[in-house]
Amino acid sequence: FKPYCYQGATVGMRLRLPIACIALEVILIILFGVAVEYDHDVSGEAGHKTNTTHHDYENEFYYRYPSFQDVHVMIFIGFGFLMTFLQRYGFSSVGFNFLIAAFSLQLATLVQGFLHTIMTGGKIHVGVESMINADFCTGSVLISFGAVLGKTSPVQMLTMAVFEVILFSVNEFILLSLLNAKDAGGSMTIHTFGAYFGLMVTRVLYRPNLDKSNKKNSSVYHSDIFAMIGTLYLWMFWPSFNSAITLHGDIQHRTALNTYYSLAACTLSTYAFSALLNHEGKLDMVHIQNAALAGGVALGTAAEMMITPFGSMIVGFLAGAISVLGYRFITPFLESKLKIQDTCGVHNLHGMPGILGAIVGAITSLAATKEHYGNGLTAVFPKITSDFPASAQAGMQAISLVVTLGIALIGGIIVGFILKLPIYGAPSDSQCFEDGVYWEVYLPNAYCIEL
Amino acid sequence: FKPYCYQGATVGMRLRLPIACIALEVILIILFGVAVEYDHDVSGEAGHKTNTTHHDYENEFYYRYPSFQDVHVMIFIGFGFLMTFLQRYGFSSVGFNFLIAAFSLQLATLVQGFLHTIMTGGKIHVGVESMINADFCTGSVLISFGAVLGKTSPVQMLTMAVFEVILFSVNEFILLSLLNAKDAGGSMTIHTFGAYFGLMVTRVLYRPNLDKSNKKNSSVYHSDIFAMIGTLYLWMFWPSFNSAITLHGDIQHRTALNTYYSLAACTLSTYAFSALLNHEGKLDMVHIQNAALAGGVALGTAAEMMITPFGSMIVGFLAGAISVLGYRFITPFLESKLKIQDTCGVHNLHGMPGILGAIVGAITSLAATKEHYGNGLTAVFPKITSDFPASAQAGMQAISLVVTLGIALIGGIIVGFILKLPIYGAPSDSQCFEDGVYWEVYLPNAYCIEL
Amino acid sequence: FKPYCYQGATVGMRLRLPIACIALEVILIILFGVAVEYDHDVSGEAGHKTNTTHHDYENEFYYRYPSFQDVHVMIFIGFGFLMTFLQRYGFSSVGFNFLIAAFSLQLATLVQGFLHTIMTGGKIHVGVESMINADFCTGSVLISFGAVLGKTSPVQMLTMAVFEVILFSVNEFILLSLLNAKDAGGSMTIHTFGAYFGLMVTRVLYRPNLDKSNKKNSSVYHSDIFAMIGTLYLWMFWPSFNSAITLHGDIQHRTALNTYYSLAACTLSTYAFSALLNHEGKLDMVHIQNAALAGGVALGTAAEMMITPFGSMIVGFLAGAISVLGYRFITPFLESKLKIQDTCGVHNLHGMPGILGAIVGAITSLAATKEHYGNGLTAVFPKITSDFPASAQAGMQAISLVVTLGIALIGGIIVGFILKLPIYGAPSDSQCFEDGVYWEVYLPNAYCIEL
Repeated sequence: FKPYCYQGATVGMRLRLPIACIALEVILIILFGVAVEYDHDVSGEAGHKTNTTHHDYENEFYYRYPSFQDVHVMIFIGFGFLMTFLQRYGFSSVGFNFLIAAFSLQLATLVQGFLHTIMTGGKIHVGVESMINADFCTGSVLISFGAVLGKTSPVQMLTMAVFEVILFSVNEFILLSLLNAKDAGGSMTIHTFGAYFGLMVTRVLYRPNLDKSNKKNSSVYHSDIFAMIGTLYLWMFWPSFNSAITLHGDIQHRTALNTYYSLAACTLSTYAFSALLNHEGKLDMVHIQNAALAGGVALGTAAEMMITPFGSMIVGFLAGAISVLGYRFITPFLESKLKIQDTCGVHNLHGMPGILGAIVGAITSLAATKEHYGNGLTAVFPKITSDFPASAQAGMQAISLVVTLGIALIGGIIVGFILKLPIYGAPSDSQCFEDGVYWEVYLPNAYCIEL
Repeated sequence: FKPYCYQGATVGMRLRLPIACIALEVILIILFGVAVEYDHDVSGEAGHKTNTTHHDYENEFYYRYPSFQDVHVMIFIGFGFLMTFLQRYGFSSVGFNFLIAAFSLQLATLVQGFLHTIMTGGKIHVGVESMINADFCTGSVLISFGAVLGKTSPVQMLTMAVFEVILFSVNEFILLSLLNAKDAGGSMTIHTFGAYFGLMVTRVLYRPNLDKSNKKNSSVYHSDIFAMIGTLYLWMFWPSFNSAITLHGDIQHRTALNTYYSLAACTLSTYAFSALLNHEGKLDMVHIQNAALAGGVALGTAAEMMITPFGSMIVGFLAGAISVLGYRFITPFLESKLKIQDTCGVHNLHGMPGILGAIVGAITSLAATKEHYGNGLTAVFPKITSDFPASAQAGMQAISLVVTLGIALIGGIIVGFILKLPIYGAPSDSQCFEDGVYWEVYLPNAYCIEL
Repeated sequence: FKPYCYQGATVGMRLRLPIACIALEVILIILFGVAVEYDHDVSGEAGHKTNTTHHDYENEFYYRYPSFQDVHVMIFIGFGFLMTFLQRYGFSSVGFNFLIAAFSLQLATLVQGFLHTIMTGGKIHVGVESMINADFCTGSVLISFGAVLGKTSPVQMLTMAVFEVILFSVNEFILLSLLNAKDAGGSMTIHTFGAYFGLMVTRVLYRPNLDKSNKKNSSVYHSDIFAMIGTLYLWMFWPSFNSAITLHGDIQHRTALNTYYSLAACTLSTYAFSALLNHEGKLDMVHIQNAALAGGVALGTAAEMMITPFGSMIVGFLAGAISVLGYRFITPFLESKLKIQDTCGVHNLHGMPGILGAIVGAITSLAATKEHYGNGLTAVFPKITSDFPASAQAGMQAISLVVTLGIALIGGIIVGFILKLPIYGAPSDSQCFEDGVYWEVYLPNAYCIEL
């Protein structure tokens, strides 16, 4: 009646996982106790912030909490369900996504907060802005998670998260605070960083015999429909993601609008290229689930700029095409030639579109003039003056991409080797993509025979 | 291990779909480049809008973006998952819904924007209001999509969308701008129009032998649970839908509140009539998935008026009853006698409740007095004066229903014949309701044998 | 092709359910007609509310509607899908959740509104605040629903809802209006009350032979993934739940923030204890689906107070641990020794964490000083003065817990006996946990043979 399908061994999580979770959480709690305090808008001393009277409706909460909730849904439902496409790894996809995200957002609050206060000293302030920034960092970790999905134990992933949160925050600090780059939606800081970091980790963890021993690295009918829940929430809320942390008012409005057009155009190019590249003209669910989102990634830097709906749609269209082509041609090449096993194809959804987004951001910065932006120029580009022209800003954007790639690639390799240590209970090849290794799973007999 | 269930032919989408998508998107991009610019609240010149200082929190974005996101979820998750009830058409339901919606919202922005500027000239302005209006038009296209679901190729549906977006926008312009009708939630413009347009299209595309050759036009257990995701999101966010584009403040507040009560009452009448009409007293998932939403449709015109919770609940209760009765008695009649094959039963969810909503709107307008509305009378009914009494407004509402039905019925017939041209790769009868015609599908053997 | 799996008898819902639904809805409509009117912010006479000009952006709608929608999603998707974990009770879980919730929110509006006006007289005012409060009461009913899930007919559950809404509202009135307790997120009013009320009902309805005759009281693979949709929406939106009805500005901001940290910490402790208590170190989906939410329950009273992220995380960590331990040790004890069959384990998710939340709230109140709260002290604790010190407030909090437990336990027993009357069409033991008793269900043969 309730057959237990998976008969193989487990990987020894009984002590490893509790020790990792409890130790990390206790450390987090202590550090929060020592170093964190409420932001002014949270503690109620908001009136001291400005000389003018501070009304309730000016509390940062009302400007940003709806966007935060959209981002939160992307992190937990979006990423979580997008990865449930695997036929026998749905519990792990959505469950470990949940665990890694809940951990990463706490650590990110501390590390990002520490770097924010490194100049000025003082305690780390938390509020809705820190919540969004922590979710952003978490998103980057989950992108890397997509590259190693199915092939790593939860303790390996928690370990990866520790290092990646730190490296992400350092890179973000360099880009935004030292180089004065603009990257509100994180084409560089989130997507490019997360993708290339994860690709390097999975490269170091290469499993030469994976394909031969394991046939579970694919979808079934219902799992692909579950994954579409993830896709659609990511797609719908990407305008909120890119605009969550921009300045109030017209800039936030513009960022959401540009992203919306980019995604719409991206969807049509995804369908076009998916059908075109199939010998029968059939659509591939993998493309629709992933490439249709590339338009949001590719506008992560430029969406707050005056790129216009016209420009946004061109970028979105290109991003969708690049992403489908990547799934069709580059992913097989990465696997066979470069030994990079990229489970979710993050190179196609986050890697190449992230680089495209960085380039688009640099080019759009180059075109920033008083004529187009009016008094809003300094709001979008606070550094641009007669001494620091738009071309200098564009240069900083380009340098930022190089820095991001450097930190991600080198960091990913180092962390990959750390994850190779034989202490995490990593699954064997035949245990990959199998929920039964980590979860109590019951399946009807028909399924067990089938798979 | 990974049997390929569907062994039949495809319908030649390899060139047709890419050509359609790319051609349409390139045209859209060019037209956006020529004709579209940011609205004031998007470009940052908002200060010029009024003489008073314009604060960030007065930006239209903060009044409407949360409602927009709710509407967006209804369009992509709500409509998309509601249609996944079919056992072997889940990819197409959610996937083509995604494609058609992403296309329609772009075209709708242009056509609606063009009609808005036809008097004054100037460029088309885009912002959060245009985003909501475009989603509304898209909703109407998706209603028609529900009538033809399973029986049309994606290129047919894109073609239908082109014509329907134009006709929708013309009808909306006549109603709202020329006839000065009120229809904030679109009982007429969205639901009545979309339903009767789609019913006429499916009438022209009648397939006499469909039932004999195809047994896939039904649900299975899991597909009905997926469909409930769509239902519940539509139900929960319908208050946001009806109020998304109303005036700020108390009117938006009231519209959401009235819709919420209508839906709650509708749900109880749906359960009551679903059990009553079954010879064993068993509930039918089709009723619950659809009829429980009729309360939102039926308040699409009157929700912003002083209809009171009492009135809203009566309307909702009637709408649920009518809708269940429609599924039980009218849909079989339409199919057997009028040769209208209505896959999702849009006549019951959008058609009859839409007409009910138009009538309720006319009657409620008739009762509009200074006594009930106070100074808010001109906010809700800007045309009502001593020269243009409430009865004249009610007359305009009634004429609007007639105009909508006329354009929908005639337009639907004409577009139906356009879709009959043998150039779209329409599926044969045996290919209807089958994902394998359009998608790479893998199913466990148990499923293949079964279905 | 479409085998009808369930061959057994039905329970006579054909007249019972329609009569119950129609009678209740008609009574509701009449009472709404007699007793309800729009709140000022809804009817448009908001300008009279204060002497200062009332701007649109000060309408309560904009402060609370996004939170309301998050709460609404928790009620209909969160609770509804969380309960779809049962293999053959998905339609009933999500469908009866829908019915009971749509009914309860209407009745709650009336009963809560009546008690609010009992002192002052006048009509019941409705607006976004009444919508949130009604959803809160509904949440409590759905918690009790989780305890009796699978073992009661829909008419039994509607009957339970009638009594529970009244008792909930009386208890809430005693706590908030008479005892001046603080409980914005309802650790006591919603969770403790709903859990112990439901546990008493299921105790009275004890079925001694249930386990022997019915093997459907368990999950399958896909049903557990559906349930994770419910879990994640509850988890993500719990910050909105706890803060939905708090005062504007920093208090709402702080409540959301504290809840977010509690939940994050709770998730790590849930994973830790779930693995630790399994002899192979495997995670149990039941724990992840439920215990990870206990951090939100446990902060339902204290989240608006100055508990700090540090304190919130400690509470969340403890709540997760207690909840997993409850599933592992206390639920079997309750069933075997106390004859309490708790289908969803509401004692672990809502009962014990609710009591913990009440205690945390009392302790945190005890520490309320002008030093920590500044001018915000009277905003959070309007009663605290030199005559009514923080210790008195803490005492009121403790008394409130006792009152809640008393009303819930006694009320649950009485209502349990009312539900034992042989008039509701209660299912037999073999009909428990079976959708086919209430719904038209079609399943592929493979499933029918299997289960």
